[in-house]
Amino acid sequence: MKKIKVRCPATVSNLCCGFDILGMALNDPYETIELTVSNTPGIRIKHTDDFKLTEKPDENIAGIALQAMINELDISYGFEVIINKQIRPGSGIGSSAASAAGIIVAANELLGLSLSKKEQVRFAMEGEVIASGSRHADNLAPCIYGGIILIRDTATFDIIELPFPSMYVTILHPQIDIKTSYARGILPENVPLKSAVRQWANVAGLIAGFMKSDYQLISRSLEDVIIEPVRSTLIPGFNDIKTRCMLIGVMGGGISGSGPSVFMLSEKEETAKDAENIMIEIYERLGIDFKTYVTTINKNGVEVIGRNE
Amino acid sequence: MKKIKVRCPATVSNLCCGFDILGMALNDPYETIELTVSNTPGIRIKHTDDFKLTEKPDENIAGIALQAMINELDISYGFEVIINKQIRPGSGIGSSAASAAGIIVAANELLGLSLSKKEQVRFAMEGEVIASGSRHADNLAPCIYGGIILIRDTATFDIIELPFPSMYVTILHPQIDIKTSYARGILPENVPLKSAVRQWANVAGLIAGFMKSDYQLISRSLEDVIIEPVRSTLIPGFNDIKTRCMLIGVMGGGISGSGPSVFMLSEKEETAKDAENIMIEIYERLGIDFKTYVTTINKNGVEVIGRNE
Repeated sequence: MKKIKVRCPATVSNLCCGFDILGMALNDPYETIELTVSNTPGIRIKHTDDFKLTEKPDENIAGIALQAMINELDISYGFEVIINKQIRPGSGIGSSAASAAGIIVAANELLGLSLSKKEQVRFAMEGEVIASGSRHADNLAPCIYGGIILIRDTATFDIIELPFPSMYVTILHPQIDIKTSYARGILPENVPLKSAVRQWANVAGLIAGFMKSDYQLISRSLEDVIIEPVRSTLIPGFNDIKTRCMLIGVMGGGISGSGPSVFMLSEKEETAKDAENIMIEIYERLGIDFKTYVTTINKNGVEVIGRNE
Repeated sequence: MKKIKVRCPATVSNLCCGFDILGMALNDPYETIELTVSNTPGIRIKHTDDFKLTEKPDENIAGIALQAMINELDISYGFEVIINKQIRPGSGIGSSAASAAGIIVAANELLGLSLSKKEQVRFAMEGEVIASGSRHADNLAPCIYGGIILIRDTATFDIIELPFPSMYVTILHPQIDIKTSYARGILPENVPLKSAVRQWANVAGLIAGFMKSDYQLISRSLEDVIIEPVRSTLIPGFNDIKTRCMLIGVMGGGISGSGPSVFMLSEKEETAKDAENIMIEIYERLGIDFKTYVTTINKNGVEVIGRNE
């Protein structure tokens, strides 16, 4: 039977001052999804990773997204799904988005549906909303489009691809649990207008910096005066890591998603590796399990890596 | 004696969602300043307009800015200043900024000081702060640089020139008084985080729209959910004007500065003129004196229009 295999990138959402509106795709880590058409109706899911996620199609994120697509497009086939998740659930780098986005892109390619990327985000959202409890596309959209993505409005899927210069990304994933709902709960309902203005000044600077390939402007604009001061308290060593990274020439960084992962952006690969060493040193001292990655920004989004007609 | 004459453009600050951070220069209206070097120390100011502004150098905005420059740069000349103000004080389209910026650019050119534009903004700020009561560069910077300008940070004069597509601007200046301090006073100290996120999503969309020359994105992003709902109540007919302008294809608009002027942005000149007709019709019906302009974005900022060595 027709079969396809896709590679689904991790993503950083809540890009510093761009809380809820800016996300980017990473070349590493990623997960793979293999999707096979079947004449037997229904969805059968198998995980080949060790994360013990549910394989029940109506509870699994990929299953829910695929089912929403099957229902709306009145697809009569069944599907076999094999997921090899390498992005740890709860890491804050778009693990659930990778599954939801990956399955939709795979089905779109496999069945030759020619859905627009925006429509694919819309279907993937059905899975993502189960995982995160709210309708946000700032992991899904970069996962499907690749690159750095602005989601101006989630309700209308107003998604804008932003040009950006070459950058290196250092990721620290502390193996601690921070529930998205808790991280949302500690945010203030109201913020000082003065802080909000400073935040949107930085957002404006960041967008202009990306589009002008102005590294110094990007660096000056990578400042989050609203979310980071609250959420960073949940991440051991955050301030220490950030301060030391800035001292060695990292452009800036922050919390990925609602944490616990931390990202740092560098102009040069060497700086990104030095930032990784700082993270390793601090986390070894803290005695907390962790993973680090030095990677670049993924420009293609979910990609077909195998096909069998 | 050496003499120079400059043309100082009106400016729109608080560009919709870009409250406090985005401004743009207009080709119309403008004022002129004539500056002559004198061997007699001191500043002598003459207004040839009818606005009855003070001509005392230590109270006049242009005088204060020029004096700050004289003091810091230890300039020993005196100056004769003739100001022909055509931008009505209190109109909300940068009347005071035009004087403060104009005098500094004129002095810089006349004396061959080769100050950077950023330094010129810094000197002009000394006059502007007296007029507005706070340190804001979102009229000064576009007045000096021209174009559409992002002021990411006023304290460090982090000023960014933004590319933008051809656009037409319709200005309505209702001849009513709104004090800047009052317009600031009615703003909330705190805003819902949800609204702030929506605002910075729009700011991001607006910057991307300008830089990509994407008229539809600009139009979708010209939405201010924080300041406009509060301040627009001070401007008779505002909602009526905006609603009708949007219906005829205007991209969007809002309050210029802290009002009372209103601006609308259009892709086509014809639409901008139709917007003017809507403003005229509504204000004639309201029986309030007003002025309107249909103009374009000034790309040069304060310009030398005459010189006499």
